[in-house]
Amino acid sequence: MNNGIYDLIHRRRDVRAQFTGAPIPDEVLHRVLTAAHAAPSVGLSQPWDFVLVRDPALRHSFHDHVQHERAAFAATLSGADADRFARIKIDGVLESSLSIVVTYDPERGGPAVLGRHAIADAGLYSVCLAIQNLWLAATAERLGVGWVSFYREPFVRRLLGIPDGIRPVAWLCLGPVTHLETVPDLERHGWRRRRPLDTVLHHDRW
Amino acid sequence: MNNGIYDLIHRRRDVRAQFTGAPIPDEVLHRVLTAAHAAPSVGLSQPWDFVLVRDPALRHSFHDHVQHERAAFAATLSGADADRFARIKIDGVLESSLSIVVTYDPERGGPAVLGRHAIADAGLYSVCLAIQNLWLAATAERLGVGWVSFYREPFVRRLLGIPDGIRPVAWLCLGPVTHLETVPDLERHGWRRRRPLDTVLHHDRW
Repeated sequence: MNNGIYDLIHRRRDVRAQFTGAPIPDEVLHRVLTAAHAAPSVGLSQPWDFVLVRDPALRHSFHDHVQHERAAFAATLSGADADRFARIKIDGVLESSLSIVVTYDPERGGPAVLGRHAIADAGLYSVCLAIQNLWLAATAERLGVGWVSFYREPFVRRLLGIPDGIRPVAWLCLGPVTHLETVPDLERHGWRRRRPLDTVLHHDRW
Repeated sequence: MNNGIYDLIHRRRDVRAQFTGAPIPDEVLHRVLTAAHAAPSVGLSQPWDFVLVRDPALRHSFHDHVQHERAAFAATLSGADADRFARIKIDGVLESSLSIVVTYDPERGGPAVLGRHAIADAGLYSVCLAIQNLWLAATAERLGVGWVSFYREPFVRRLLGIPDGIRPVAWLCLGPVTHLETVPDLERHGWRRRRPLDTVLHHDRW
């Protein structure tokens, strides 16, 4: 038994405010990306790509877009929810060292992807497994990761020149951090509390 | 730096043929499920459920369905692909100790899920992150995991009494194994080879 994996899994956080902006050594980034690329994938299709976004102009453009989408979500809230949301930082795009955009290519490994004929989304699922590998490896390397999802896919596709048919799945911010919080931001800010495990377990039938 | 995570990530396999059927101690299963439940989720929605399927009758019914879907996929192949596929075992449903069906509830944490207003699938992505946590924790516990995707979602929903609106995302087989192969089954059987990392990296723009 390897206790390290449990420590990592429970220590991992979704980081917004703790990025230092310090550079990530190339060999560290290579290990983290190699970990992502070693994820399981339907039919061994490995349908992911990683766009490493360092250009400050691109990151500023994305950040502006995120602020616009933040306002759009805020407009749907009222009362205590609106107050709570106003205090929550939703991204570290400008403060982190690097952004990694992870995409999905449904044509990869086709036309007959073993294990995907009955479930079209199986390839999309594979991309997410790669993201969690990346996240845990980064945590082991003392880097923070923040998944930003306040964006519209067509905007990211245009910004980065992602071809038609390739789907952006995640915009991840990555970099050294001052520390990882012990409680998720959304719980610390009273947005939502984590549920006990036993509320999501079923035996044989739902 | 924690070397253990890289060992796990690279040792992890998608298991079909190596299950022993030995029981999984309760405390081990609890640790693995707790790891899954500690995954990041959009808006801290934790939109997953886990159905632990031990009942042999349910597993036999599912296995029959998988064989039917295997035949449906095989019928789309010809020539060398058909020959290769004929040699590939696609599930360990009957030989493994336990099945875990992982589902997605889009209503969990609603109506305003923070981070999901622009990307409807963000909740589905969260469920997949939980699956990869489960997979790595199980690997650390010297258990094998096999993700079976030769099924139709309505069949699984009916079989396990999963409510309308809840989506089955994965049928996982879990249990002690004789060993983990060092090369993925699909590569060993000549179905497909893994790609080098540098073929999926882009810098700033695609």
